[in-house]
Amino acid sequence: MSDVKKTVVVGSGSFGTALAAVFALEGEDEVTLLGRNAVLMEMLAETREHPKALPGITLPKALDFTMDPSVLEAADTIVLAVPAQAQRAASLYYAPYLNPEAVIISASKGIERSTGRLITDVLNETLPHHHAGALSGPGFAIDLARGKPIAMALAFRSRALARDTAEILSGRTFRIYASGDPVGVQIGGALKNVLAIACGIVEGAELGESARAALISRGLAEMSRLAVAMGGEADTVRGLSGLGDLVLTGSSRQSRNFRYGVALAEGNFDSVNAALVEGVYSASVANELAAEHGVQMPISNAVARVLDGKLGIADALDELMTRPITTE
Amino acid sequence: MSDVKKTVVVGSGSFGTALAAVFALEGEDEVTLLGRNAVLMEMLAETREHPKALPGITLPKALDFTMDPSVLEAADTIVLAVPAQAQRAASLYYAPYLNPEAVIISASKGIERSTGRLITDVLNETLPHHHAGALSGPGFAIDLARGKPIAMALAFRSRALARDTAEILSGRTFRIYASGDPVGVQIGGALKNVLAIACGIVEGAELGESARAALISRGLAEMSRLAVAMGGEADTVRGLSGLGDLVLTGSSRQSRNFRYGVALAEGNFDSVNAALVEGVYSASVANELAAEHGVQMPISNAVARVLDGKLGIADALDELMTRPITTE
Repeated sequence: MSDVKKTVVVGSGSFGTALAAVFALEGEDEVTLLGRNAVLMEMLAETREHPKALPGITLPKALDFTMDPSVLEAADTIVLAVPAQAQRAASLYYAPYLNPEAVIISASKGIERSTGRLITDVLNETLPHHHAGALSGPGFAIDLARGKPIAMALAFRSRALARDTAEILSGRTFRIYASGDPVGVQIGGALKNVLAIACGIVEGAELGESARAALISRGLAEMSRLAVAMGGEADTVRGLSGLGDLVLTGSSRQSRNFRYGVALAEGNFDSVNAALVEGVYSASVANELAAEHGVQMPISNAVARVLDGKLGIADALDELMTRPITTE
Repeated sequence: MSDVKKTVVVGSGSFGTALAAVFALEGEDEVTLLGRNAVLMEMLAETREHPKALPGITLPKALDFTMDPSVLEAADTIVLAVPAQAQRAASLYYAPYLNPEAVIISASKGIERSTGRLITDVLNETLPHHHAGALSGPGFAIDLARGKPIAMALAFRSRALARDTAEILSGRTFRIYASGDPVGVQIGGALKNVLAIACGIVEGAELGESARAALISRGLAEMSRLAVAMGGEADTVRGLSGLGDLVLTGSSRQSRNFRYGVALAEGNFDSVNAALVEGVYSASVANELAAEHGVQMPISNAVARVLDGKLGIADALDELMTRPITTE
């Protein structure tokens, strides 16, 4: 019997690796990174470097690496750092190995495209006996791994559980704030990617920083409307996951979603791999959710039509920049 | 008797000149720029260029230039594009020349330091027989002058007057949205300069874009609290003037306030002329307003103490980045 909590991060991409690194360095828990790529996992264990995902970073000695899912049997907290569209498959794949008491956290930003469900709802389906939460907010993997100050939100339906889990995982530079609103946190996380594509389009078309700032303020109103219609709270979306993340993603070339928007406007589609752009998946499903809940989401709507080839960039810009603003 | 409205922009700085240019190019009104610097006004009339303020821009032919305040006698709309701390003196100086029916618009972002008053309240005092409004939102002068899409808010206590005036001044690229909340619009405009200094400090200290995004989301909460305490609406601050402007100013080296924060963190004070940084004036008065209205404003408070030499940069960063977030 030990008081030390065990945390497993599933997924050896840049965000999963960065999360595991900062948890191992700063938290009071024992941390293991669980991956499925044998070559990569061996290299990580040997070199403590992941040059493709986190160039220039040496991963902490306290971080363990494994390919063996049985590590999950003793894990108190399991962070699924896989893409939103892979959360269902990953959770089903690892389900037989889970400690029945383990708390599950989705660290993806998106909505399941095939069902329109939030990821915590997917996890409540695939792992009905576990509490599922969502971690989201402004945090580039490389900033996390470098120990820059990062603040993110962690939401469970039970705010008390969110608080306890946030306390275990938070450290000196990575501070996690507890929320009782998984809907708001996840709508913020998913929608900001769609809006970041719109911001990238405005950037690529050289409309200027002032235009992009106006778009972000309208985007916040749009996210808030959907969050509230789906049972979340507008204030959640105005916090870290939502506004904070939108500000980051909507103005930085470090963001894949933003770069994809820039590429769209420049007619330079091949420069970004669309399959890795979460906002591409979220755009159409956001659009469907907006229709279902009777919410006006002109920006997400325009992005979805651009991605479907139904709207040209020039017309999209016209729509994005000249449509009356309803919140002012 | 003519139906063509006459607009005079007072102040030949970069923002005043850009406003006058875009009004002249796009609006249906006749526009004159009124300045007091004889050499500059003659050069503007002759060359239609203001290389110091708006490099590379040719001002439109439709724009008139004058040093003669009697042009105000026929003006329907007068835009005071002078710094916040100069609004009282400018309005008193020009008062004898005003058309008694003229509508007055403050295009400054700040609060009067000596009295703690919003600029429309100052104008209500100096020009009690005129309606005073405030124009604010994300718009760099150079973006305006280049005809990039810009959206800003114009607030009068009478929303109907705001709507009519916005219609006269709006054009194809410069779109002005009417608001009935001068308090919210001005608190947003003034506070975002203070928060932009904080963002600059975080940038100068190389804390990363993620940290800055978290600061912006907390800054929005802080602005909202003060706006509401002073009788404004939180939704105003979440719109163009406030959030939109904060996003722009808090992440761009084009902003003087942001650059000043960077310089503070880098110990490089002389690179920016503090006398031209509106946020320097707004910080201490925001702090006083916060105390007066019993509102927590930790970011503005830290900025004010840094500017007063009462708080070092390292301690300020510690406060800014580690203080518990109350909105999450």
